[in-house]
Amino acid sequence: MSKKPKQNYAWSGRFTNKMNEQAFEFSKSIDIDKKLAVFDIEGSLAHLKSLLKAGIISKEEEKSLRNELENIKGKIRDNSFQFDEFEEDVHMAIESVLRKKFSFGGKIHTGRSRNDQVALDERLYLKDATQKIITEIQKLNRNLLKRAEEHKTTIMPGYTHLQRAQPVLLAHHLLAYINMFNRDIQRFEDAKDRINISPLGSAALAGTPFNLDRHEVAKILDFSGITLNSIDSVSDRDYVIEFISNCSITMMHLSRLAEEFVLWSSHEFSFIEISDEFASGSSIMPQKKNPDMAELVRGKVGRVYGNLINILTIMKALPLSYNRDMQEDKTPLFDSFDTLTACIRISSMMLANCVFNKEKLLEATKRGFCNATEIADYLAEKGIPFRKAHEICGKIVAYCVSKNVTLEELSMEKYQEFSEKFEKNIFSRLNPSSSIQLKKTKGSTSFKEVLNQINYWKRKFRKADEPPRKP
Amino acid sequence: MSKKPKQNYAWSGRFTNKMNEQAFEFSKSIDIDKKLAVFDIEGSLAHLKSLLKAGIISKEEEKSLRNELENIKGKIRDNSFQFDEFEEDVHMAIESVLRKKFSFGGKIHTGRSRNDQVALDERLYLKDATQKIITEIQKLNRNLLKRAEEHKTTIMPGYTHLQRAQPVLLAHHLLAYINMFNRDIQRFEDAKDRINISPLGSAALAGTPFNLDRHEVAKILDFSGITLNSIDSVSDRDYVIEFISNCSITMMHLSRLAEEFVLWSSHEFSFIEISDEFASGSSIMPQKKNPDMAELVRGKVGRVYGNLINILTIMKALPLSYNRDMQEDKTPLFDSFDTLTACIRISSMMLANCVFNKEKLLEATKRGFCNATEIADYLAEKGIPFRKAHEICGKIVAYCVSKNVTLEELSMEKYQEFSEKFEKNIFSRLNPSSSIQLKKTKGSTSFKEVLNQINYWKRKFRKADEPPRKP
Amino acid sequence: MSKKPKQNYAWSGRFTNKMNEQAFEFSKSIDIDKKLAVFDIEGSLAHLKSLLKAGIISKEEEKSLRNELENIKGKIRDNSFQFDEFEEDVHMAIESVLRKKFSFGGKIHTGRSRNDQVALDERLYLKDATQKIITEIQKLNRNLLKRAEEHKTTIMPGYTHLQRAQPVLLAHHLLAYINMFNRDIQRFEDAKDRINISPLGSAALAGTPFNLDRHEVAKILDFSGITLNSIDSVSDRDYVIEFISNCSITMMHLSRLAEEFVLWSSHEFSFIEISDEFASGSSIMPQKKNPDMAELVRGKVGRVYGNLINILTIMKALPLSYNRDMQEDKTPLFDSFDTLTACIRISSMMLANCVFNKEKLLEATKRGFCNATEIADYLAEKGIPFRKAHEICGKIVAYCVSKNVTLEELSMEKYQEFSEKFEKNIFSRLNPSSSIQLKKTKGSTSFKEVLNQINYWKRKFRKADEPPRKP
Amino acid sequence: MSKKPKQNYAWSGRFTNKMNEQAFEFSKSIDIDKKLAVFDIEGSLAHLKSLLKAGIISKEEEKSLRNELENIKGKIRDNSFQFDEFEEDVHMAIESVLRKKFSFGGKIHTGRSRNDQVALDERLYLKDATQKIITEIQKLNRNLLKRAEEHKTTIMPGYTHLQRAQPVLLAHHLLAYINMFNRDIQRFEDAKDRINISPLGSAALAGTPFNLDRHEVAKILDFSGITLNSIDSVSDRDYVIEFISNCSITMMHLSRLAEEFVLWSSHEFSFIEISDEFASGSSIMPQKKNPDMAELVRGKVGRVYGNLINILTIMKALPLSYNRDMQEDKTPLFDSFDTLTACIRISSMMLANCVFNKEKLLEATKRGFCNATEIADYLAEKGIPFRKAHEICGKIVAYCVSKNVTLEELSMEKYQEFSEKFEKNIFSRLNPSSSIQLKKTKGSTSFKEVLNQINYWKRKFRKADEPPRKP
Repeated sequence: MSKKPKQNYAWSGRFTNKMNEQAFEFSKSIDIDKKLAVFDIEGSLAHLKSLLKAGIISKEEEKSLRNELENIKGKIRDNSFQFDEFEEDVHMAIESVLRKKFSFGGKIHTGRSRNDQVALDERLYLKDATQKIITEIQKLNRNLLKRAEEHKTTIMPGYTHLQRAQPVLLAHHLLAYINMFNRDIQRFEDAKDRINISPLGSAALAGTPFNLDRHEVAKILDFSGITLNSIDSVSDRDYVIEFISNCSITMMHLSRLAEEFVLWSSHEFSFIEISDEFASGSSIMPQKKNPDMAELVRGKVGRVYGNLINILTIMKALPLSYNRDMQEDKTPLFDSFDTLTACIRISSMMLANCVFNKEKLLEATKRGFCNATEIADYLAEKGIPFRKAHEICGKIVAYCVSKNVTLEELSMEKYQEFSEKFEKNIFSRLNPSSSIQLKKTKGSTSFKEVLNQINYWKRKFRKADEPPRKP
Repeated sequence: MSKKPKQNYAWSGRFTNKMNEQAFEFSKSIDIDKKLAVFDIEGSLAHLKSLLKAGIISKEEEKSLRNELENIKGKIRDNSFQFDEFEEDVHMAIESVLRKKFSFGGKIHTGRSRNDQVALDERLYLKDATQKIITEIQKLNRNLLKRAEEHKTTIMPGYTHLQRAQPVLLAHHLLAYINMFNRDIQRFEDAKDRINISPLGSAALAGTPFNLDRHEVAKILDFSGITLNSIDSVSDRDYVIEFISNCSITMMHLSRLAEEFVLWSSHEFSFIEISDEFASGSSIMPQKKNPDMAELVRGKVGRVYGNLINILTIMKALPLSYNRDMQEDKTPLFDSFDTLTACIRISSMMLANCVFNKEKLLEATKRGFCNATEIADYLAEKGIPFRKAHEICGKIVAYCVSKNVTLEELSMEKYQEFSEKFEKNIFSRLNPSSSIQLKKTKGSTSFKEVLNQINYWKRKFRKADEPPRKP
Repeated sequence: MSKKPKQNYAWSGRFTNKMNEQAFEFSKSIDIDKKLAVFDIEGSLAHLKSLLKAGIISKEEEKSLRNELENIKGKIRDNSFQFDEFEEDVHMAIESVLRKKFSFGGKIHTGRSRNDQVALDERLYLKDATQKIITEIQKLNRNLLKRAEEHKTTIMPGYTHLQRAQPVLLAHHLLAYINMFNRDIQRFEDAKDRINISPLGSAALAGTPFNLDRHEVAKILDFSGITLNSIDSVSDRDYVIEFISNCSITMMHLSRLAEEFVLWSSHEFSFIEISDEFASGSSIMPQKKNPDMAELVRGKVGRVYGNLINILTIMKALPLSYNRDMQEDKTPLFDSFDTLTACIRISSMMLANCVFNKEKLLEATKRGFCNATEIADYLAEKGIPFRKAHEICGKIVAYCVSKNVTLEELSMEKYQEFSEKFEKNIFSRLNPSSSIQLKKTKGSTSFKEVLNQINYWKRKFRKADEPPRKP
Repeated sequence: MSKKPKQNYAWSGRFTNKMNEQAFEFSKSIDIDKKLAVFDIEGSLAHLKSLLKAGIISKEEEKSLRNELENIKGKIRDNSFQFDEFEEDVHMAIESVLRKKFSFGGKIHTGRSRNDQVALDERLYLKDATQKIITEIQKLNRNLLKRAEEHKTTIMPGYTHLQRAQPVLLAHHLLAYINMFNRDIQRFEDAKDRINISPLGSAALAGTPFNLDRHEVAKILDFSGITLNSIDSVSDRDYVIEFISNCSITMMHLSRLAEEFVLWSSHEFSFIEISDEFASGSSIMPQKKNPDMAELVRGKVGRVYGNLINILTIMKALPLSYNRDMQEDKTPLFDSFDTLTACIRISSMMLANCVFNKEKLLEATKRGFCNATEIADYLAEKGIPFRKAHEICGKIVAYCVSKNVTLEELSMEKYQEFSEKFEKNIFSRLNPSSSIQLKKTKGSTSFKEVLNQINYWKRKFRKADEPPRKP
């Protein structure tokens, strides 16, 4: 057919007929895996050194191929490289340039297979992606810390079951998120141990008879070591699953923050005002100012969960070693990185730009019996077993509900009807501020403990800013 | 900023500040939902008639807007329409052309909201997508039937637990898939009842004070009726979930067929030869002829399962009515349709182009004691309770295994040592062909029953070819 | 080992060694599949008739086996049947009783395999489960209708993006759920076509040489027909997937209702009071009255989604025909039915027992510019293109926000500053009740349309109460 | 109702009406969470010390409560403790015993809530579960190593795309699995950092006014530290998700091993003989010896994937802090642990008991052109660019296929027709053993490298056997 003059494969020798065009379209991955192009070249540059050292290519050949690869890399970086769409994949698209230009171009594939090459590319991609995500989460956490510090004395109701529970500091609530996202960073850090290993030299699955120095290649590419088993090297996609699983947990955390943004910007809560810059309106209802960014972040958690199921399903029950199904790992991998990165950034900006309504937050602690636990604790401190104290307090609340009054509005006499242990100091206890003040346990919402937390993270973030030590 | 001169929204009136650029990028959907463009225009054309009838626009206005919409539709169809990337979504991208051209352009959005508009567009998309999938499955089924008819006497081992179980006809095995895919068609057909209903006129969520004739719009767009409740109309994405669920089941069926292609083209099975046109080679191993199409289909099942989890997660616990999270439904919807369509087509072609190795298939029934059930049935026919017959036969097999002989190779005397019920006719029973011949139940693998099945589907497919009756 | 004197299998003949105990424990399914016991017996009773008709068992044998099966069924129903835990599965546990009691007991397995037997049992289970779920959803829908009728004039804010959007009737909001659940019923009804077919007679995979009348068996068991292909009959689990997919969508709907119960019972919304009977308290905070039932329903959606992924994963890429993996379908199947049934019931009771706070609901429409769309529609009615009208109204809202006044509080002069089209009747338009009154489209929230909807469902439910016609 | 005389709650004070019975049944978790009972008591014992130190309970009270708790623990361990089914959950079931026995029993709940208590219990459970899984994986890996060592010279075909690719050592193939499972261990080890932190003292969400020493409690319970933020402490279920995600990846690895067992025990492959003890037969086909254990392991991967989606769905978009939805985390958590543990064990036993068919494995390398890469490498070593070498070799293979001969059977003259670089030593290269021998890269399948790997793991496992160093 004239429209498609030729297809290029790495393997036509044994075949009588060309691949069917629709089959070629169906199976080629160049549109997706060109995201790996720069990493592919980095890998090839390292492989060249290895081939030179093993005497497989000459110094001149090495230099020519190196220069051309650098040239292509430059073009890719400034978006001027034209990927040949008749090539199957990114590996061939780059290699074919070398082969067209140099009679010895094909030597570059000596001792390697696309099976170990793509594993290498993905690992290089993931090293980069992981670091970028960590950096984005760190920025978000600094934003959270900044807002927490601004609100280290802002009082709000803490919630359980979306019911007002006890007064807490807004700072304390925001610090909870720093803890979540910090765990996410830890998980991405831990995964590096399993990402940061070079598979190159594993070839198709069995290794190669060429005397390639795998440790040298690993060193050039800043890997901490090499994979130990060539079959495993090309069969393994754990690093993709673990990465997307980590992305899923972070997305889940973001969805909780997003949910709170949606709730808090509702008229009913009115705890925050989202800035115009991060809201949208309605095409029909002129008054609307919708928390769209938060809703979209919340919705996009489904996307990353879906990617996780995708890759887990792909890998289910695949016999060793490489199977073509594994080519399908790239879409969920790239999409998870892109989605997560965008969601962290937008959440961070939305957070930085919202206004917390201090008065509304405080006011909300005054209704809803947020301070009832204080009464139970008060009685328990006076020696009444907690369960009994709890029951007494429950009855007081029920009484207040029936009379439509708050706990502060009850008389001393009334309190003493419920228990003789009550004394006048009960009233100062009911103030949200003293409820907070009185908390004593580490990690609690007391002003002091919250300050401790703020300082802890400040120190930690300062440390993260220091240049990493290299051995 | 100079790079991005302006953003266009449908709702700027109430807002002081423009949307943040990154927020705009994050939230706009034009890149994805432009797939809905033609459907959006069909909907607008119907809405125009409704506005005219209600006296909201004049005849001249209607004509001008209609002509322009037809004009845009033509451009979209021949890929010459330039979507303005500063528009949020496909609806605004199209409407803004009208507003720029006509002072009364904005009238087209009277009595509708993007909430009911997008629901309409999706339903039109799904009507089309559903019919296309049904057509593709029908083609696949005809291919299966064709291959079944070619092999209506080809004998192969039927498998349970991937162990050879009993001889069956290859036609019978292929007919099993026709049944699976036919159920898929039924499910897509059933879903039409829930897709084929017009939501237009529901506006944002509450309906509209304009006197729009919803039934008229539905009729123009060939819907069978209208939605009954305006809040439900804009909150509902059941049709997306049901569609992707149906796609998932079909993908699962395709993954089973793909698995069999992979197994059968392995050297160990050698039941089929995949044509060069639908196989690929290796960049390192020159002898390889890999069943890549089958592997990719098998891998892509993960993609559609992932899409299903995506949309189910999105919709979890969303309060009524429309929430922006729901914008995220389009990626999994479009991707499921595209993936499924491509996988059906490639499977169908792969099937049509493979060669079944009749000799290997028959030979495989001769080893592995495929015919052992015959012995048990033989004894059961002679009055021995089936469980006892089964046990006797088990012992015979164990004996054969220990002696490394087949059941055919055992002597009459030996048989009679195991049971006196054996007579000479046992040997003719052991032939795979007579095993097949002797099956009696409806739907069994007997030559006659398989022929019945083939004729059943022939009639059914012929009927499907007839033009659909319109009332 | 003395603790476990023996294991019973259906297949020991060919084996030299007993099964390893841990392997036996790992593989046996009796603890789970005994839920199928009654259905298994129903199937065996029908099979008996078939064996009798085919002359495989005598009239006396048939009678003895039938009596014993009825006997066991009685015991199972009153929980006095002792399942032998040394049996592999429910089929063997029942059959072994027959074999121990009658020398000819083993004849019952003539012409069938556990492969078609378990498919039959599952289909009988699903017929029953499907009908039960439909009945439960119908009850929920009647409760919704009852509450809707009580509140056919109760006004509340309709929401989009959890922002107050336009006034709607509470009845209209509740009716939206009736539509959702009605679609669920339709889906379960549609699935019956694929469930209600008998696989018996397919035997292991190939059919059987015994002359069994499959149609007769189907008739006895009230199936509408028989499966067409014996291999498909034992390979197919579509009915399980489709059922769990349908359960997932219904659970999603329940999770949305649950979310609204959580929101509405929060202090911030205070739209409903959940009755004490369906709330719980806190072990530490005495004031708490938590919407636990709603939270649990919302949480349990994960369970059913998980079940769906479970069965989809199991079936991925399984070659035909039966594979033991398929035994794992029962846990997600039974759990989905149990979970869904419990969640529908509890939601229905929670709904029936809550108190809607009419004053709060109405009050909420007065703040938050719910009536702003009225202004835009008002201007559009006066000939201003909707987009322009929307923009004017947006500016009015922005002005009100800056002055902290409502739209009702603005003066006529002020309105005319924004547009000369405003006349005095704008003020009556701003009333939530007239906003509702003025809606005109079918399915809108107008008093009349809501009444129409109520009457529609009343008629429909009355019809469902009539005894089903049998042909 | 007489059947159910009373329900016990921790929170009845504020409530007028008892909980509805069905609601109670629906919401209680005692049937499931009693698995936490022993951990709950460990936590209470530590909490007692804390209360004593803070002066909240007296020495005598502490002693009485401690003795009773130890008493209950003993009963639980020997299965004689009767859980009161009218209690909501495991915490109340245990505490109520104390309250019934001692007037001061209720003091034990001072300064804690079930919110931090259940988080503590789960973390204690997970510490235990994680260690148990690591131990089981280690056992499996030792089995793999043992089998690998037995087969360090057994030659088999390595596969890509389920096509024979290159000869490898069976040991090398088995060692690939050790690498996979070793990564699993690493992941479970890494997760310990996030599990091994005590949340106790966080109370409901805000901390407590009682002066509890959280570090002391952590020390008693052998935690490495305490959580830093009380809101996060009760909102966090990351540890459950991460655990189930890790289980999912291990299950995926097991499913790959299981798939190979199924394939390899098929008649077509015949690479292994599964021992009778780990196979089952058919109720209808007497010859069958099915790899059921492998199939069930493969099927159960769906179960754990489902559990992962379950917990991820539960946690999506939950606002802080505790919500009752989170109670639903226990079913997927416990089920994942139980399923994974059972699957590792059965896989390990199945592996230990199978017989590898050395002759078949070797024979399989002789057909299917496994040695074709040798020719390409041979030519590449002689200076022909690899791509050209690959193409030449492809043509040779195509020629052999057309003539139905192997590469070994081609004459020297024929070789030289394809390339003049061929010399006589090409023939020795074609032997599978020399193909293996000649591999040079680290981690390759050469005899030497495989031996290195075996020794590496031996050393590593020996080290793991040494008692852990405590600081």
